[in-house]
Amino acid sequence: MNSALRRPKLEIWFEFGSNYSYPSVHRLGDLARARGIDVHWEPFLLGPIFKSLGWDTSPFVLQEAKGRYMWRDMERQCEKYGIPWRRPTTFPRRALLPMRVAVLGKDAPWIEDFSKTMMSLNFAEDKDIDSVEVVAAVLTELGLDSASLIEQAQAPENKEKLKVQTSRAQELGIFGGPTFVTRGELFWGNDRLEEALEWATR
Amino acid sequence: MNSALRRPKLEIWFEFGSNYSYPSVHRLGDLARARGIDVHWEPFLLGPIFKSLGWDTSPFVLQEAKGRYMWRDMERQCEKYGIPWRRPTTFPRRALLPMRVAVLGKDAPWIEDFSKTMMSLNFAEDKDIDSVEVVAAVLTELGLDSASLIEQAQAPENKEKLKVQTSRAQELGIFGGPTFVTRGELFWGNDRLEEALEWATR
Repeated sequence: MNSALRRPKLEIWFEFGSNYSYPSVHRLGDLARARGIDVHWEPFLLGPIFKSLGWDTSPFVLQEAKGRYMWRDMERQCEKYGIPWRRPTTFPRRALLPMRVAVLGKDAPWIEDFSKTMMSLNFAEDKDIDSVEVVAAVLTELGLDSASLIEQAQAPENKEKLKVQTSRAQELGIFGGPTFVTRGELFWGNDRLEEALEWATR
Repeated sequence: MNSALRRPKLEIWFEFGSNYSYPSVHRLGDLARARGIDVHWEPFLLGPIFKSLGWDTSPFVLQEAKGRYMWRDMERQCEKYGIPWRRPTTFPRRALLPMRVAVLGKDAPWIEDFSKTMMSLNFAEDKDIDSVEVVAAVLTELGLDSASLIEQAQAPENKEKLKVQTSRAQELGIFGGPTFVTRGELFWGNDRLEEALEWATR
């Protein structure tokens, strides 16, 4: 039996438009490596999940007081974790192209760096992360063939793959991002990352 | 200047029907005393706040996946904090009478013990906490004149006081329970209790 099969596993279900996914995507890799946990990166779209609840946008937009609280909380959380923060001028920001790239590369060695960069561009640099130029520049910076990857990302079979990921998320009972899945348990929210890691190795 | 005026203060806005208020109401007193923080107990009703968002019950009932997650999360959280847990057969449980008693006694020395007991009766013993018998028994157990307190709790001016508390909560930007308020900052959820305590003494 391959020893990798016995290593603890943890899935992170995330979305580049999801603000609380931002600190988790940045924190997870190092925390998991320190504990010998294999991370599975699972991109999915929140939009269809919100739609299935009858919402046409984020609950942070629909519920004004909750939204106001969240923006202040994000400032405090990013200060706590020592990660840069700038409130995006567009929220929730459309991120379909980079999400398609993420689903294409979910098992590739570059998925972590790509995801961290995309999240930072949205929540620390206020960039339009759904543009071909931005995504291409990030892939090139990572030493990848950006033109080829963007083409593959937009192919029908890969578009379908992101839809299937989103359906899988719903089947798992996921209703928001980030969500961690390990050993049959769901942990919702950046606040639960440490508990999820602990559960993975329990 | 009285030294009490210079002691750090922290408000807990809570509701006996609110599941995440349960661990916070149990944890807060000892944590605050250890840090020399004065706790202000602020009962309010979640129902009118949910109604103002167009909801006729708890979001944990309205959103099935979120509700399912929450029940499992409560089990895990109560295990983590070492507090008893039994899923109530009625949720959200009406708690108008004990909430009126709480608002009547919010500055009394018995508010902490009364609140802890009420929360445990709901979330560990699955009792109908809105009944006169249950509330009277708890007050008597605390060495109080239950008949007189229940009468005062149901007087028009005290009913009004609970409504005013709920309006104050909304003015503060509170949208869920528990919420901690200290030095002009809001902290929402049992997960944020430690950060709120830290902020209070910062």
